[in-house]
Order: sequence, then structure tokens, then C-alpha cells
Amino acid sequence: MHQKEITLPSFSRGFHIITSIIQQELDEFTKIKTGLLHVFIKHTSASLTINENADPTVREDFEGSFNLIVPENAPHYKHTFEGSDDMPAHIKASLLDSSLSVPITNGKLNLGTWQGIYLCEHRNNGGSRKLVLTIIGS
Amino acid sequence: MHQKEITLPSFSRGFHIITSIIQQELDEFTKIKTGLLHVFIKHTSASLTINENADPTVREDFEGSFNLIVPENAPHYKHTFEGSDDMPAHIKASLLDSSLSVPITNGKLNLGTWQGIYLCEHRNNGGSRKLVLTIIGS
Amino acid sequence: MHQKEITLPSFSRGFHIITSIIQQELDEFTKIKTGLLHVFIKHTSASLTINENADPTVREDFEGSFNLIVPENAPHYKHTFEGSDDMPAHIKASLLDSSLSVPITNGKLNLGTWQGIYLCEHRNNGGSRKLVLTIIGS
Repeated sequence: MHQKEITLPSFSRGFHIITSIIQQELDEFTKIKTGLLHVFIKHTSASLTINENADPTVREDFEGSFNLIVPENAPHYKHTFEGSDDMPAHIKASLLDSSLSVPITNGKLNLGTWQGIYLCEHRNNGGSRKLVLTIIGS
Repeated sequence: MHQKEITLPSFSRGFHIITSIIQQELDEFTKIKTGLLHVFIKHTSASLTINENADPTVREDFEGSFNLIVPENAPHYKHTFEGSDDMPAHIKASLLDSSLSVPITNGKLNLGTWQGIYLCEHRNNGGSRKLVLTIIGS
Repeated sequence: MHQKEITLPSFSRGFHIITSIIQQELDEFTKIKTGLLHVFIKHTSASLTINENADPTVREDFEGSFNLIVPENAPHYKHTFEGSDDMPAHIKASLLDSSLSVPITNGKLNLGTWQGIYLCEHRNNGGSRKLVLTIIGS
């Protein structure tokens, strides 16, 4: 059982691949060969997911699609004082998730060929984001 | 490895913060300092998520937003005999999730400042809900 | 800590219950009595969730609902060269999830009475899918 908190650099609004950042942390602070990596984001307007790692337009289509599923300025919103991007960011964060977990096999993230870890920044100016990595295994 | 099943009181339809209930269970039945808490809900029309813990209108906007994303009485629904709130409840439960996991650090849930654990009750009269808490750590 | 990769048979587009396949794997390769099962799908256009296990029309309504939430041929899609079902499949996979976890109690999946594990196939011809099962416990 290993645990580490890291701070990501600021990302622009949208979907960003952070697989190499996570794999590097894993390489540096643990010798676990078989187990599970849990990544948790300590924020309510950014989130984590796993998806396609090759074509940048997939991430652009994620941004476009989530903006349609959870529109800004919906007439029913009551929580509006933090900006028009804030309430949609909360909903998007829960639709995606505040954590993800990936099997570790032979000391590496056992992702599929086309899978990458996404940091999903839902605010216009979210700033840096804190993650807690927890690794269970042997 | 510790495991415990608990029963929540009945909640009205909507989104409710249950962080203190979960933290109290954690305090009572484990001395784990570093690890992971897994919470699982044994139901298909209520769910769990993590989101903003301060402004009650955020939870009201969750209810409003999910009612728009997954409307009642959609013309394509075939599963209608348990009431107009039932099929949307199933979809909402899968959009959110039947489980969540949070790192434990220094014996406490390592949530961000603004994060709380939500019980998401999607039925009009869901009754009490059962959770299974599993704690892994040392 | 046990880990095993399995290959599912091809499923048609839609939502399919695979609980018995997963329980059988659990029975065959582990004696763990108390713990957690983590299931990870190594793909970006199929996903995993837990929902109602009794009425087949629930799974049909899942397919209908997700096709409305994430339509094919949305005018903003840029990633279109893999077919009209591809980009929606990626979005659906992240809305649902690439992994799920279930408590193990007395050596069995501790699911609620009405809960089943769904394989969610979002492609028209997705082919066989690989899962990684990781079991933590004692």
C-alpha cells in the first residue's frame, strides 16, 4: 500500500491525456508488480476518465459533446454566482468521475492499446489540480 | 481489510450529503491510517457520487439537470410498469455510479475542501438504502 | 491479490448481463472470502456498469436512452472516420465507466437482489472484449 499526493500543472478547459505523468509517478515511488492503481481528484469541477489516446479530435468531440449534454446558462440553474461554467462543471464531474482505477500488471498500467488517462478540466480557469494516487499490490 | 454493511435512513428524491455518516462509520470500525474506502450501494435506482458540499442549490441543480438529461415518460421506454420515475432512476444510477472510492490518509477520508459524498435518491419513494463499506489499508 | 485477464465472446450492440461469467471466474481462481473485485475493460468503445438484472426491457431502454443522450451524426463531431457509431461509443464508454468494483462477502459477489453486471457494447460490431479481473482480500 503506497500513497502519494501530486499537483498537476494548470490545463485549459477540455480533455487532456495525462497517462505518462501517472506512469512516471508509478515508476518512481513503487516496485509493485501486480495490483491496482487508484487515482482520485480532490476537486468538484474537474474529473478523470479513460478513453481514446490517439486522435486529438476525440478529445475535442468530448468537449463539444459534454457542452451539449450539460449546457451553460440552463434556465433552471440556481447556483450561478461562480460563473456560467461552474454549475455545468459540477454536473460533468459527476457524470465522468472523481476517481479511476487501473490494474497494474508486471509493474505497468495494464491499459488497452488505445486507452489513455484523461484529466477533464471543466472550468475556464481551473488552475492546478491535486490528485491522490493510492497503489495496492505486491 | 474491513467490511461492514450499513442501512441509511430513507431520503427524499434528490441529492443528499452523507459524508459525516460515512466518516463516523470509518472512525468506529477501523484503525486504518493509509488506504482506500470503497462504498457500494446495493440498489439500481439510487447511486453515489462526490461533489460540492457547501451550497444546497448545487444539489437542487443536480436534481434539475438529471431530470433533463434523463426525462420521465420518454416515448421509447418499454419498462414502465414500476412508475414513471423507475426507468429514469436506473439510467441515472448508471450515469452516476453504484460505488465510489476515496483515499484514506492519516485515518481520515482525504477529500478536497469542497468535496462531499452524495447519496443520490432517484425514486420518489425509494425507502432505506443499504451500503457495503470495504476498507483496504494498514 | 489475484489477477486474471479474460476474453468475453462477441456481443451485439446493446447492454448484456455478464454476472454469471464473472462469478464463475471468481469461483475458479480464488478462495478469497472478504474483499473487493475490480473489473476493468481494456477498450474505449465498450464499458461496464451495474444495473437491473430481471426485466430485459430495462436493457433495451438503456440502449434507447444512451442513443438519445449521445446521438450519432451530431454535427459537431470531428472524429468521424471510424463510422457513425464510433465517436458516440467513446462518449458512452466514459459516461458509464471502464471499470467497476463489487464487494466480495463470504466468497461471493455481494450484489443487491436486483443488481447484475452489464457489458455495454457501444459499437455495431465491437468483436470480443478483454477484461482484467483484480481481486483484493483475504
